Amino acid sequence: MSSIAVLPRKRGRPAKDEGDFRATREALLNAGVAALTEKGFSATGIDEILKSVGVPKGSFYHFFANKEAFGAELIARYDEYFVRKLDRYYLDETKAPLDRIDAFFADAERGMKRFGFRRGCLVGNLGQEMGTLPEPFRAQLTQVLLGWQRRTATVLEQARRKGEIRKATDCAEWAAFLWTGWEGAVLRAKLERKAAPLQMFARLFRQSIGA
Amino acid sequence: MSSIAVLPRKRGRPAKDEGDFRATREALLNAGVAALTEKGFSATGIDEILKSVGVPKGSFYHFFANKEAFGAELIARYDEYFVRKLDRYYLDETKAPLDRIDAFFADAERGMKRFGFRRGCLVGNLGQEMGTLPEPFRAQLTQVLLGWQRRTATVLEQARRKGEIRKATDCAEWAAFLWTGWEGAVLRAKLERKAAPLQMFARLFRQSIGA
Repeated sequence: MSSIAVLPRKRGRPAKDEGDFRATREALLNAGVAALTEKGFSATGIDEILKSVGVPKGSFYHFFANKEAFGAELIARYDEYFVRKLDRYYLDETKAPLDRIDAFFADAERGMKRFGFRRGCLVGNLGQEMGTLPEPFRAQLTQVLLGWQRRTATVLEQARRKGEIRKATDCAEWAAFLWTGWEGAVLRAKLERKAAPLQMFARLFRQSIGA
Repeated sequence: MSSIAVLPRKRGRPAKDEGDFRATREALLNAGVAALTEKGFSATGIDEILKSVGVPKGSFYHFFANKEAFGAELIARYDEYFVRKLDRYYLDETKAPLDRIDAFFADAERGMKRFGFRRGCLVGNLGQEMGTLPEPFRAQLTQVLLGWQRRTATVLEQARRKGEIRKATDCAEWAAFLWTGWEGAVLRAKLERKAAPLQMFARLFRQSIGA
């Protein structure tokens, strides 16, 4: 009886409710990204996400098929956010290529400071706990990192053409070196709650690759 | 009444039982280290550790005060094991200093391969999830990494004196660069389930620091 009473209401949901649904879903995604950058996937409970957004307990499946689907969407959303950030710095032609990379490092440092070094990289967090995550996350996280590396390789290629780095540099390989090391630096900054590991890595990376 | 019944038995526990107690405690520590290198602290349940060793559920507190005390002991034990490994390679004077570091990298790669790249570094895992761990772990994990770095700085100092690396190298800083990047490489190898990130990092680190 109750399902009959509910159905017409659902079909007839006015535009305002549809807007509320989207807004709530957005709020859940934002809260999810924040939680995953801070605590990773396993330690994040669906209930705390719902509570932080003020959504009634138990209504999660109204918004997402399950925790795995939610996680996959959080990875995709973080990637979109991060690629926008990278492009903002990497495509800034008013700066020399290596200075663009340093500008991104400085932005990331400000970002970590803003949250007291509690939040790190969502991809690094989930990469570390991959042993306990749904298997499809592995390919998704790997592809995300490869995407960031491709963008970095393009900037390094420009640095190579401008003579900022050695002519013989394998830019794709050095882009992998950067992202591998940077994830380690973010981990270390989170552990020590200070910017020093980020600054050290940025400085020595530039020293390493410099002409 | 039951405590009175139990006390004399405890006091009178024969040597064999004492040996069993120690052996079981050792087995729990070994199982704990394995679980933490694979899944980290939060995702590891005490019950699964007990089960893997064949110890009755609920008897954990007979061996350790609580999960935090167990974790602190696992970090210390992993550090001991790791320092022995580092010393085996770093103190091998039959090899040139940079070759000793490469020999350690190769050992670590074999170790990860042996467990299908499922197990990473206990310190990296716990560093990543520090946001949800008991606060005293932060200083303990940081000190462990600083200890590994000091040992690495000593080898780099020898490399500097032998002219393998630039005279102006700040060996302590480069040791921090190595450990920061290496933790990232281990994370990446675990994510991608392959040795390539470890090999790439070892090669480019040596290229970076080389004279």
